[in-house]
Amino acid sequence: MAAQPIPDTDALIARMASDGRAAQAVLARMSDAAKADALRAAAQALRADAPAVLAANARDLAAGEAAGLTGALLDRLRLDAQRLEAIAMALDQVAALPDPVGEVIDRTTRPNGLGLQRIRVPIGLIGIIYESRPNVTADAAALCLRAGNAVLLRGGSEAVHSNRAIHAALLRGLVPSGVPAAAVQLVPVQDRAAVGAMLTAAGLIDMIVPRGGKSLVARVQADARVPVLAHLDGLCHTYIHASAEPAMARAIAHNAKLRRTGICGAMETLLLDARFPESHAVIADLIAGGCEVRGDARAQAIDPRVRPASAEDWDTEYLDAVLSVAVVDGLDAALDHIARHSSHHTDAIVAADGDVAERFLAEVDSAIVMANASSQFADGGEFGLGAEIGIATGRLHARGPVALEGLTTYKWQVRGNGQLRP
Amino acid sequence: MAAQPIPDTDALIARMASDGRAAQAVLARMSDAAKADALRAAAQALRADAPAVLAANARDLAAGEAAGLTGALLDRLRLDAQRLEAIAMALDQVAALPDPVGEVIDRTTRPNGLGLQRIRVPIGLIGIIYESRPNVTADAAALCLRAGNAVLLRGGSEAVHSNRAIHAALLRGLVPSGVPAAAVQLVPVQDRAAVGAMLTAAGLIDMIVPRGGKSLVARVQADARVPVLAHLDGLCHTYIHASAEPAMARAIAHNAKLRRTGICGAMETLLLDARFPESHAVIADLIAGGCEVRGDARAQAIDPRVRPASAEDWDTEYLDAVLSVAVVDGLDAALDHIARHSSHHTDAIVAADGDVAERFLAEVDSAIVMANASSQFADGGEFGLGAEIGIATGRLHARGPVALEGLTTYKWQVRGNGQLRP
Repeated sequence: MAAQPIPDTDALIARMASDGRAAQAVLARMSDAAKADALRAAAQALRADAPAVLAANARDLAAGEAAGLTGALLDRLRLDAQRLEAIAMALDQVAALPDPVGEVIDRTTRPNGLGLQRIRVPIGLIGIIYESRPNVTADAAALCLRAGNAVLLRGGSEAVHSNRAIHAALLRGLVPSGVPAAAVQLVPVQDRAAVGAMLTAAGLIDMIVPRGGKSLVARVQADARVPVLAHLDGLCHTYIHASAEPAMARAIAHNAKLRRTGICGAMETLLLDARFPESHAVIADLIAGGCEVRGDARAQAIDPRVRPASAEDWDTEYLDAVLSVAVVDGLDAALDHIARHSSHHTDAIVAADGDVAERFLAEVDSAIVMANASSQFADGGEFGLGAEIGIATGRLHARGPVALEGLTTYKWQVRGNGQLRP
Repeated sequence: MAAQPIPDTDALIARMASDGRAAQAVLARMSDAAKADALRAAAQALRADAPAVLAANARDLAAGEAAGLTGALLDRLRLDAQRLEAIAMALDQVAALPDPVGEVIDRTTRPNGLGLQRIRVPIGLIGIIYESRPNVTADAAALCLRAGNAVLLRGGSEAVHSNRAIHAALLRGLVPSGVPAAAVQLVPVQDRAAVGAMLTAAGLIDMIVPRGGKSLVARVQADARVPVLAHLDGLCHTYIHASAEPAMARAIAHNAKLRRTGICGAMETLLLDARFPESHAVIADLIAGGCEVRGDARAQAIDPRVRPASAEDWDTEYLDAVLSVAVVDGLDAALDHIARHSSHHTDAIVAADGDVAERFLAEVDSAIVMANASSQFADGGEFGLGAEIGIATGRLHARGPVALEGLTTYKWQVRGNGQLRP
């Protein structure tokens, strides 16, 4: 941070993007092993810088408490030795993932002898706009770098000191390993104009990934001129079919709702088949677990502790120990409810009848559809992707958990021996 | 076209999109064979309706002549028995393509027993905004339908009667075959507000594909709130390396520029290596073929008929028998010129030195990179995709020629036996 004057925000972002693109051209030529070594060096530098990072985090926490941030926000912001080690370990894990760049997607030879293949290449420069979790600074940078992309990070103002300390530590590992400093840049200004400048930097930033709450994602979707990999609501349903094995249904409903209520894969609406015989036990388990249950008239008739659901409940992502419950008459009614109310993130069925489960998996049009498992498995790590940059709820480019493959594109290579088009 | 009043344009597009989405849900459940049969029936209906379609086209041509359209535009608009048969044959060819829907992209089993697979599904409702070529009405509808998508077609006002007649013929084949009429809708109004309403119909239209000139694509990119599969300029380079086989280099340069000058894969800039010994012959061939050649000082020194190139020439897509020529000192200079001026559509090298060719294929960051072949092969049909909805120059979702695969997305299916997330 030299004492140079900060130009206007659009010019600042344009200069950072231009520097990032030049750095990306260097990254694109780095070998798999060199990129992995650089990430491991970044992990070690982060461990070595733990005192400085924790001190910076303490400043953010003190400012946050003074500003009256909620306990949940302060918890997201808080780092300790254990959480910092988890961030460093995540860097090591991303280093160990296979490099997607250079992978041949498919190849053919045309009748005229032209050889065609599609190979994966980096997307280019990726902008990450995120809120209070400082771990995103390291996680997102690592995933972008692993796939050969440069990254422009714009974190939340509450975490500014933590983000700067983490970013400085990363560079202390990356730069001696051959990664240009401009491959990982942290936007130094906190005003909202920086977000606007990033969103409209078409041709300079290749993709924006927003990581945060509804208002951030809504602003990004409204204003972006750059393609966005958006992560919208997780309004996830679980449908318990008449054929469901009762013990499995009870366990899955409890886990899908209550294991962690604040994650996007948490169940928000439970659909109970009218012919499922153990609905009372499912509801009793949830209430015993501390969940507030709101239901339609038939759900209220199952247990008097079920409160009446309003029309809005069916479209509400609670992210809390609250659940809406509807009783439905069979698979078609469940499919209809889901088609009308799902956010198309993750929807699940519990059914012993394999034909019913397969129809559900075929006909529900969501990024993730599950049979006989907890919707809380909706996660890149749980899917074996190693990590995730987000869970995409759009329909183009990538859908569901997005990891390294979603941070690449491809090009067509054509090899000939003098072919002319007739 | 009943005599109902046309509501305001936004409401009209919203109603059409809603009808299209409902129709798509029906399409999504149609079998591969049923979709293929419907497309073949549409081809037959188009053949049967040839007199009506040609009469409608004659009205458009007469109006276009009266309005003073250029000869090139009138030629794009013109249908005759042969061109109409080519459109019908294209429908049959799309019917014969393998259905991408349901294809398993990959599958894994997690250590906890969860079975994961990604399968291809339709994108949903696709909007096509195009200009004067009436064949797009049939071609785009066929590709969208083959991949299970509904389509909203908005053609150019010059082709309004031709488009309506083709659309009516298609429906006469499709509807008796089980395709809902709303799966293929033609926007009935010609005002520009209809384009604006489509571009802002986020959540109703899943993807917009613009097919047309620069001003259309620029407007779409500026105004769209819906994801766009954009097809920008084809500012294509061919670099002739010192090692190039002279006869091959001459033939490729001639074909890449002059086979058809108006297509996006046509060469617009030729880079001649200073050490390539036959540059004079390459230039002489092009001039003999009727090409105007503009060049830098070193190119002018090769042949006095080369006119001076201005700075803008290096960034101009002529789409005509005009070419800019620069002499460069080796591969790195060629890579640098291409990085600065290419539109990243298609760039090619002619080189006998395999290492040089491979470095070019690896380092040029364009949708299509070619060695020892004419850039005019940049085409979905030539790539064996059967047809193309366009050549994407963006970096996300699909790149280069886009056919059926690019008109699909995927979902994750997860099969468990009671797994709970710990």
